[in-house]
Amino acid sequence: MDLWRTAIVDAGPMHLRVRGHDVLDLMRHSTFTDLIFLLHHERLPSAAERRLFDAMLIGVADHGAGAPSCAAARLAASGNRQSLSAAIAAGVLTIGDEHGGAGSGCMELIAAGLDRVRRDRLSFQAVAADLVDDAIATKTRLPGFGHRVHATIDPRVDVLFTLAQESALAGDGIRFSRALECALGERVKPIPLNIDGALAAILIDLGLPSMVGKLLFIIGRVAGLSAEVLEEYTREKPMRITIPVTYDGVPPRTDGQ
Amino acid sequence: MDLWRTAIVDAGPMHLRVRGHDVLDLMRHSTFTDLIFLLHHERLPSAAERRLFDAMLIGVADHGAGAPSCAAARLAASGNRQSLSAAIAAGVLTIGDEHGGAGSGCMELIAAGLDRVRRDRLSFQAVAADLVDDAIATKTRLPGFGHRVHATIDPRVDVLFTLAQESALAGDGIRFSRALECALGERVKPIPLNIDGALAAILIDLGLPSMVGKLLFIIGRVAGLSAEVLEEYTREKPMRITIPVTYDGVPPRTDGQ
Amino acid sequence: MDLWRTAIVDAGPMHLRVRGHDVLDLMRHSTFTDLIFLLHHERLPSAAERRLFDAMLIGVADHGAGAPSCAAARLAASGNRQSLSAAIAAGVLTIGDEHGGAGSGCMELIAAGLDRVRRDRLSFQAVAADLVDDAIATKTRLPGFGHRVHATIDPRVDVLFTLAQESALAGDGIRFSRALECALGERVKPIPLNIDGALAAILIDLGLPSMVGKLLFIIGRVAGLSAEVLEEYTREKPMRITIPVTYDGVPPRTDGQ
Amino acid sequence: MDLWRTAIVDAGPMHLRVRGHDVLDLMRHSTFTDLIFLLHHERLPSAAERRLFDAMLIGVADHGAGAPSCAAARLAASGNRQSLSAAIAAGVLTIGDEHGGAGSGCMELIAAGLDRVRRDRLSFQAVAADLVDDAIATKTRLPGFGHRVHATIDPRVDVLFTLAQESALAGDGIRFSRALECALGERVKPIPLNIDGALAAILIDLGLPSMVGKLLFIIGRVAGLSAEVLEEYTREKPMRITIPVTYDGVPPRTDGQ
Repeated sequence: MDLWRTAIVDAGPMHLRVRGHDVLDLMRHSTFTDLIFLLHHERLPSAAERRLFDAMLIGVADHGAGAPSCAAARLAASGNRQSLSAAIAAGVLTIGDEHGGAGSGCMELIAAGLDRVRRDRLSFQAVAADLVDDAIATKTRLPGFGHRVHATIDPRVDVLFTLAQESALAGDGIRFSRALECALGERVKPIPLNIDGALAAILIDLGLPSMVGKLLFIIGRVAGLSAEVLEEYTREKPMRITIPVTYDGVPPRTDGQ
Repeated sequence: MDLWRTAIVDAGPMHLRVRGHDVLDLMRHSTFTDLIFLLHHERLPSAAERRLFDAMLIGVADHGAGAPSCAAARLAASGNRQSLSAAIAAGVLTIGDEHGGAGSGCMELIAAGLDRVRRDRLSFQAVAADLVDDAIATKTRLPGFGHRVHATIDPRVDVLFTLAQESALAGDGIRFSRALECALGERVKPIPLNIDGALAAILIDLGLPSMVGKLLFIIGRVAGLSAEVLEEYTREKPMRITIPVTYDGVPPRTDGQ
Repeated sequence: MDLWRTAIVDAGPMHLRVRGHDVLDLMRHSTFTDLIFLLHHERLPSAAERRLFDAMLIGVADHGAGAPSCAAARLAASGNRQSLSAAIAAGVLTIGDEHGGAGSGCMELIAAGLDRVRRDRLSFQAVAADLVDDAIATKTRLPGFGHRVHATIDPRVDVLFTLAQESALAGDGIRFSRALECALGERVKPIPLNIDGALAAILIDLGLPSMVGKLLFIIGRVAGLSAEVLEEYTREKPMRITIPVTYDGVPPRTDGQ
Repeated sequence: MDLWRTAIVDAGPMHLRVRGHDVLDLMRHSTFTDLIFLLHHERLPSAAERRLFDAMLIGVADHGAGAPSCAAARLAASGNRQSLSAAIAAGVLTIGDEHGGAGSGCMELIAAGLDRVRRDRLSFQAVAADLVDDAIATKTRLPGFGHRVHATIDPRVDVLFTLAQESALAGDGIRFSRALECALGERVKPIPLNIDGALAAILIDLGLPSMVGKLLFIIGRVAGLSAEVLEEYTREKPMRITIPVTYDGVPPRTDGQ
């Protein structure tokens, strides 16, 4: 009976292979970032691709204990000190379209834009302006743009795009993300690309599917959550966190309804 | 009001620092593995330490879809296709002392053994023999030894220990783990060190706390789970997995009790 | 500073109130099902509404260890025996549109259909036929219809609908769900309403929002997962579950690419 | 091949049975609380047992949005609005020995005390005094005693114990928990039984295993989390929650170490 299939790992009795590569060879000669690339791209990266992946993973690993992912992980570590994995999982669960996961939506947006550029032989500027006008009309936000803290510019975006340009990996994804940023600035107000959006542009140029926009954030963030949970376990007492709440519902009632 | 404290990340308005290091600098010059080391060790690794961390993370990233972590992640992806993070979290939750987390228990075992070697001025062999005799008497298993598939030897252990020895990072942790393996073979039967145990021995020699035995497994495994979940979403239909169950409880009853 | 607001629970220093009701009074006089109704509907149920809620919660509590939710919970209990909540959470995470959560989509489908019936003064039959034709044209499945095991009819649906009719709580939601079932039978093949769809029809008639289609399933299922996890902890050894996997990916390669 | 066994649910092709009871019969005649009792006790409850279970489940369902379980669920709903089950699971993961789960430890404490009363023919008072002295000597807290908010007395405890006494279900569990409370007051200071401890005493008297101390809390709390998550989705914007953090680690450094 064949219950499960997989094309990723071949866990033979004496040998373990990932995408056909011997794991012992990978352990001897590759980096963890190489393996992350291989697991999602089906081949090993070039040196320049590895550099970009390292920079992206570092850029998203930790944004401080006030981020929802970190706060939820610490709350779980605070109430349930029997399972490190429970705390890390609680942090992972806060990651979605609204927190850390906008990269996937942004990749779909860029891909749709580039499709239209090619199909209709339009300029990047024209398509970007159209997409911004659509967002204005439907009152939706463009995923990958704007940040709660970095109101004007996120310096990590420049680092990532500079790395991509220096190694000739910058392509239409980055170009189109910049066109969207310009169109937003002209038609709405300056709303700079954020780190999720920068990941999206680069991942498009590296040829990865849109779900990786979210998955790469999760992989990087788990490293940060791990350290935060370790600190909560070793430095803080259980149940230390107090969150003030205001009740704003119906008044007391005694009628049973 | 100060609800939370952290010593890991300084998320100032314009700069983000991890353990005092500027994140932009880290993005430009460091690897993701460097950052993982920094987050848990409070300093950056040497080249040899980085090589060992890379090999350990690669060694635990994925053991195939039949492992509990992978199976649970794929089941979640199969029933709940609205959240990649839900599927990865389901996989993480299967990691505990019994699956992937034995490294923590093994680190505590090795640390306790080394304490006794130093305090009582005993040989590694004598202390290891005592610990094995204790386990026989209490009918407990030594964490970090034995494997369902690799009955005789896990080749990844040799790769890791060879890397450690070639770079002069092998220390008392590895020596004592080998002493335990010998004592087990002499007193019980050959039960080789497994990958969790190898991680434990090396992490002791690198000076990391015992919780990292579990955390490092989680960080590595999340990379594998991410790829497995991506494959489940893109290649398989929802609810494809059928698990045969046998009922072996009480017979039908109609008495209302 | 006001970080959080809530309209549900007033946790004053000496009294705890839910939706304005004193918790001590509820503990003395109400059932857990009353409270579940109150938490989601903002008032206590009538006796007939309570009866229906009880029947629905019992109907979804457990479908056996082969269901994804149960299998994932048992896998987590198998690998991570340090946290009961981790195992239950792993089970909850498998619940989505494809497993247990179709009730929400079905409620939206029924609500959209009833809107059209009222707005365009059409018959239930005409609107149901249109919706089925739309589904055929777009090759989508109607949420709440069809089941892997109960190919012809799920007997729990009849029990629920009979209870609703006997207590005069059956309304347009149930009528329209039956119209959809007829239209499917005429235009495609017999695909009976499943338990998720029955919940959806009844919840529409009780005036609850569509998210409750999923939430009620989760609340009921957690009771079943709890018992399954308890059994796994007390009756089974860790890591007992073996899942056969077939590798069907690329062959071994040694070229480093 | 027999991969899984279960003694709880018999999911035959046309009939679904829980512990031998036909699910259709249960749906028609039983309450959800009956089923929860049956799933964990292997028989249906008496009317008095049902009343106690209802009161316990209501008592733990929700303590307000500041509790770790609720806060984590709302954080997940705030960042990841694609999966209701992800938010509820995040809340469940905060439940452990320190939050909501002390009932299990308290049940083990009471059971150990009652064993000693019977074995050594000692008075409840004498054994309780010994256990408190042990806790003082080892500087440990007794699980099930003390509360962050209800410093002197939790009124829910009285409601539960009164219900138990009125229906003649109060037994040695409640008696011994009160003996512990007295001994604490005499030897340390007044530290009243909390809601977890009250559950523990009653569950001992009902003959349930200690893990149910935690599981019953989870089942009740999931009902509250469900309503809180529903409110967060429908009333609040994503990413609305701001948590102030203070960095108290090492200063900026530029030496690369």
